[in-house]
Amino acid sequence: MDQASVIGLIGGMIVLVVSVLIAGASFGAFIDYPSLMVVFGGAFCATLVSFPLRNFLGIGSVTKKVFFNRPENVTELIQTIVELAQVARRDGLLALEAKQEEIKNPFMVLGIQMAVDGTRPEVIEDVLRTELEAVATRHRDGKAVLDQVGRMAPAFGMIGTLMGLIIMLGNLDDPDAIGPSMAVALITTLYGAIVSNMVFIPWADKLGFINRQELIAMEIVIRGIMGIQSGDNPRVIEQKLNTFVPPKYRATGKKESEAA
Amino acid sequence: MDQASVIGLIGGMIVLVVSVLIAGASFGAFIDYPSLMVVFGGAFCATLVSFPLRNFLGIGSVTKKVFFNRPENVTELIQTIVELAQVARRDGLLALEAKQEEIKNPFMVLGIQMAVDGTRPEVIEDVLRTELEAVATRHRDGKAVLDQVGRMAPAFGMIGTLMGLIIMLGNLDDPDAIGPSMAVALITTLYGAIVSNMVFIPWADKLGFINRQELIAMEIVIRGIMGIQSGDNPRVIEQKLNTFVPPKYRATGKKESEAA
Amino acid sequence: MDQASVIGLIGGMIVLVVSVLIAGASFGAFIDYPSLMVVFGGAFCATLVSFPLRNFLGIGSVTKKVFFNRPENVTELIQTIVELAQVARRDGLLALEAKQEEIKNPFMVLGIQMAVDGTRPEVIEDVLRTELEAVATRHRDGKAVLDQVGRMAPAFGMIGTLMGLIIMLGNLDDPDAIGPSMAVALITTLYGAIVSNMVFIPWADKLGFINRQELIAMEIVIRGIMGIQSGDNPRVIEQKLNTFVPPKYRATGKKESEAA
Amino acid sequence: MDQASVIGLIGGMIVLVVSVLIAGASFGAFIDYPSLMVVFGGAFCATLVSFPLRNFLGIGSVTKKVFFNRPENVTELIQTIVELAQVARRDGLLALEAKQEEIKNPFMVLGIQMAVDGTRPEVIEDVLRTELEAVATRHRDGKAVLDQVGRMAPAFGMIGTLMGLIIMLGNLDDPDAIGPSMAVALITTLYGAIVSNMVFIPWADKLGFINRQELIAMEIVIRGIMGIQSGDNPRVIEQKLNTFVPPKYRATGKKESEAA
Amino acid sequence: MDQASVIGLIGGMIVLVVSVLIAGASFGAFIDYPSLMVVFGGAFCATLVSFPLRNFLGIGSVTKKVFFNRPENVTELIQTIVELAQVARRDGLLALEAKQEEIKNPFMVLGIQMAVDGTRPEVIEDVLRTELEAVATRHRDGKAVLDQVGRMAPAFGMIGTLMGLIIMLGNLDDPDAIGPSMAVALITTLYGAIVSNMVFIPWADKLGFINRQELIAMEIVIRGIMGIQSGDNPRVIEQKLNTFVPPKYRATGKKESEAA
Repeated sequence: MDQASVIGLIGGMIVLVVSVLIAGASFGAFIDYPSLMVVFGGAFCATLVSFPLRNFLGIGSVTKKVFFNRPENVTELIQTIVELAQVARRDGLLALEAKQEEIKNPFMVLGIQMAVDGTRPEVIEDVLRTELEAVATRHRDGKAVLDQVGRMAPAFGMIGTLMGLIIMLGNLDDPDAIGPSMAVALITTLYGAIVSNMVFIPWADKLGFINRQELIAMEIVIRGIMGIQSGDNPRVIEQKLNTFVPPKYRATGKKESEAA
Repeated sequence: MDQASVIGLIGGMIVLVVSVLIAGASFGAFIDYPSLMVVFGGAFCATLVSFPLRNFLGIGSVTKKVFFNRPENVTELIQTIVELAQVARRDGLLALEAKQEEIKNPFMVLGIQMAVDGTRPEVIEDVLRTELEAVATRHRDGKAVLDQVGRMAPAFGMIGTLMGLIIMLGNLDDPDAIGPSMAVALITTLYGAIVSNMVFIPWADKLGFINRQELIAMEIVIRGIMGIQSGDNPRVIEQKLNTFVPPKYRATGKKESEAA
Repeated sequence: MDQASVIGLIGGMIVLVVSVLIAGASFGAFIDYPSLMVVFGGAFCATLVSFPLRNFLGIGSVTKKVFFNRPENVTELIQTIVELAQVARRDGLLALEAKQEEIKNPFMVLGIQMAVDGTRPEVIEDVLRTELEAVATRHRDGKAVLDQVGRMAPAFGMIGTLMGLIIMLGNLDDPDAIGPSMAVALITTLYGAIVSNMVFIPWADKLGFINRQELIAMEIVIRGIMGIQSGDNPRVIEQKLNTFVPPKYRATGKKESEAA
Repeated sequence: MDQASVIGLIGGMIVLVVSVLIAGASFGAFIDYPSLMVVFGGAFCATLVSFPLRNFLGIGSVTKKVFFNRPENVTELIQTIVELAQVARRDGLLALEAKQEEIKNPFMVLGIQMAVDGTRPEVIEDVLRTELEAVATRHRDGKAVLDQVGRMAPAFGMIGTLMGLIIMLGNLDDPDAIGPSMAVALITTLYGAIVSNMVFIPWADKLGFINRQELIAMEIVIRGIMGIQSGDNPRVIEQKLNTFVPPKYRATGKKESEAA
Repeated sequence: MDQASVIGLIGGMIVLVVSVLIAGASFGAFIDYPSLMVVFGGAFCATLVSFPLRNFLGIGSVTKKVFFNRPENVTELIQTIVELAQVARRDGLLALEAKQEEIKNPFMVLGIQMAVDGTRPEVIEDVLRTELEAVATRHRDGKAVLDQVGRMAPAFGMIGTLMGLIIMLGNLDDPDAIGPSMAVALITTLYGAIVSNMVFIPWADKLGFINRQELIAMEIVIRGIMGIQSGDNPRVIEQKLNTFVPPKYRATGKKESEAA
């Protein structure tokens, strides 16, 4: 469970609620079901038009990823690669076959399997890189759905407000109703702004971040496997891969750059 | 027929209509023909200025593609390539000539024909890649028309509202007319916002998505044909091409990465 | 004469005029000379500050290009190249010298001349590519002037409206004058929006489109000349160059891809 | 301590305070705690949702860097590299081992160590370049947090204003309260605009600048070490590296370009 | 002295002044010192926070460049290169030493000197290209300061207007003061819009243009010197370099493309 996203969301809600309480206003003033319908219904329908059904429905698993993502432990991943490199150097590439079951990362399993099968290095790199690019494309498509909802929510907030204003301006007979009608009209803009800035834009940004981390882990695996196959010295492999890790998280680097 | 786009469009309309009904307003308040004319007429005329006539008229076929696009079945496409690779490996490249009629994808037909004709690999790749780039350019030009309408509709919405406000402000004699006049002035902004956010921006985004899928299918064909011509092992070709498909849709991959 | 741009501009004007007529307003309400001066004067002066004088003055020829551009007939261009390739293959490169006068495209004349002179292929490609890049740069500089006017017009529209509002708010003594003053203040914003969205943004977009077409024609010439010089088979040259043309406009391609 | 950022921040605050004093207004009119809470609380919570906790918490050290950054003295850095190059040319690469303790830049220490260890040049360049890319990634992630706060502050300013307007419009009974209520409603927009434009956007821009300088210093180190290892003439190394320094700050260049 | 920028600035001021005169308003209505302070003070302070002090202070020389820039005469530059190429071909590279004093362009002096010294071509190109990249970086940093002021001026215009509105709304006792107070509040937005759109955005755009011209001149020098060193035919060098010049300004090209 990703604490930051949960804390942030709950904290943001508390901030808004408390500020209403301090202002001494009732919550009733901020709840309007038709407005809710225009903003959410409109934003989701517009997003539905924008993507194939399958991509739109992926919004659920994509959201789950924002909250329940468990980042690959890169330090551990490098450790595993270094161990495999030591085994391969000592006992040959075929000895890796026995180790395969211990590997959890399915992308690494694929690469090791190809190395064990004696696939040519260019082919291995080609397959792994195409896989990485394909994952990047799927990532981008998943993030695009959240981005679109985040872009459409304020647009439909504005549409709702315009509708409310038009209704109100057409019925100015009762001066006492003007204020409340305008208040209701503004609620859709408020909903659109909150939904977009508190929920979907941050989710999309978080997802982009998680995706980049995954791609870095895949890049590490590719470089590691290419190094293992070409029989590089495990220490050199470790040194190369450690550069992907911030200095303070590096496991065994003897000399570390603190440049960042 | 693409369900998502249809469901989304109809759903969005229902959402807006129901919200008006709940608010107890009459639809008459939201219909104004001159406003319709300013927003649609203005947006289409501005788009007409922005492109050669031929491109502008392509808006019809481009829109049809948004709704009736039938995406290439990539799994099937890869299957076909693998089968051709097996035939070519067993019976030689010339044996592919007999298979040509079974192939539906015209881009693949072009590539296979060149391979059968004994065209040099560099030339085949060059012709196919130039074709892919040219298709990408035509895609971009088609999408640009929808994008432009989506960009111009809110602009002309604002122009209409400004015109309405100027007319209204020049005739403030009758206080009772101010409200309705302002309501009418705001209708163009509403039209512009709905037309842009519910229709043209989502259509353009959807088209961009469809186009990317087509380019991926073309990329698969190119790599497949290059592999067939160079006599690659059909299993290696399959493995390479399968990386373009999300793991769960892969047909016959023995070992699959679930990394995404 | 480019019909689309003319039809679009005239159509857009008619749309706006008719909508005013339907609304029963007088045109006088929409004409204000100081507003015209602020929007046009301001936008052109700001653009004048933004570019060297020579570039700014080029706005005339650039605009002419939007309306009187006569696109290179790409199918014909390819036909010419294929014929030259046949001549060169049959009678040698020197035989092209006699054909030079029939070629209208000056860029192709330059390339053929270099080929006839026996210039080395790398040098020919280098000269032609640098020429293409230089044309692209000049295109971009020309388009930038229209873009800048399109960007500055709404800004000066807003500046004019702010000036009008400030004048109005400083003289609220006569309540009857408030409406008309505000109407006049809004006119600059209206002018800015129309000038930008109906004229300069579409012109700039159209110019960008025309420019891209020219660069494609130059790219075709470069590839054609390189093919002619290296003595490629005219049929292969035709096949390669035809990929730049949408399938339905291709002249003689025996097998065509309908992929786009 | 970076003077510009401190002077700018204090100067900006003085400007705003003095302008309020001149206008004869009381500061009380500009202080509203719930508004403060909505803008800061909302912006920080939305940023918290957007990043993993670790990145969000890095905002402290990132801010410290804006103020206390001490840029690498590039002239001195080049001087050090040239001296090392002279030593290496005279006494061999191993002689650099003795010099290592004098080097302060940890990135250079890493490179020199690898050179002394006899690591192959490709590996050295690979490790150093990956390190540089990894630093660039960490930089980008750090800057992204400041950017996000700068983007969210005005959004929550608008959200707060909308909330204030809705509350106000729902209670129009007391006409005397309308002005002050609206003033309070606008305060959140004011806070959001100041926080974003005076603090977080400039901080993020400054950080981007500092980061680029660091990457240039790393690039200089990489090129220097590659030159040292391949035994380049120290004068050539100096000439190459000096191009990174503005002419007027170059230490010993005999002939300098003043082109910039 | 760059006429366009001066004419544009003065013309723009005249346009605004005359439009005020026509409207019969007094200039006093548009002058408010605290507003001036908020917009200029705020924008400059925010820019000061955004850059190291040295870069911020460079705004003076950068502005001078906008007005007093004297563009390199590219035709003359090419002529010089061609002459040097003739000398080098006739009398050898060393004969260029005597010509060095006649060369004004310091970047070309650097390149010729290296060629005379017998530096290897790769090193010459490397040094010159790094210099070009470094100049491009310094250009970008200089332009960034003007861009930032142009971005911050409207932001502080809005901040000033919000402050004015908050003060006004807190003191609604005197109805006669509302109009003038609001007028004053709007003045900051007006200042911000004028300062940004008439001054800093155009200056930044002009500077970007000038910078690109300088980089093109440097590119010509690099290609020229590489051609001279490799002993290319001066006519070929001329033909290559002339592609950088618009056809109508080319000095001696026998056959010119009019394609642009």
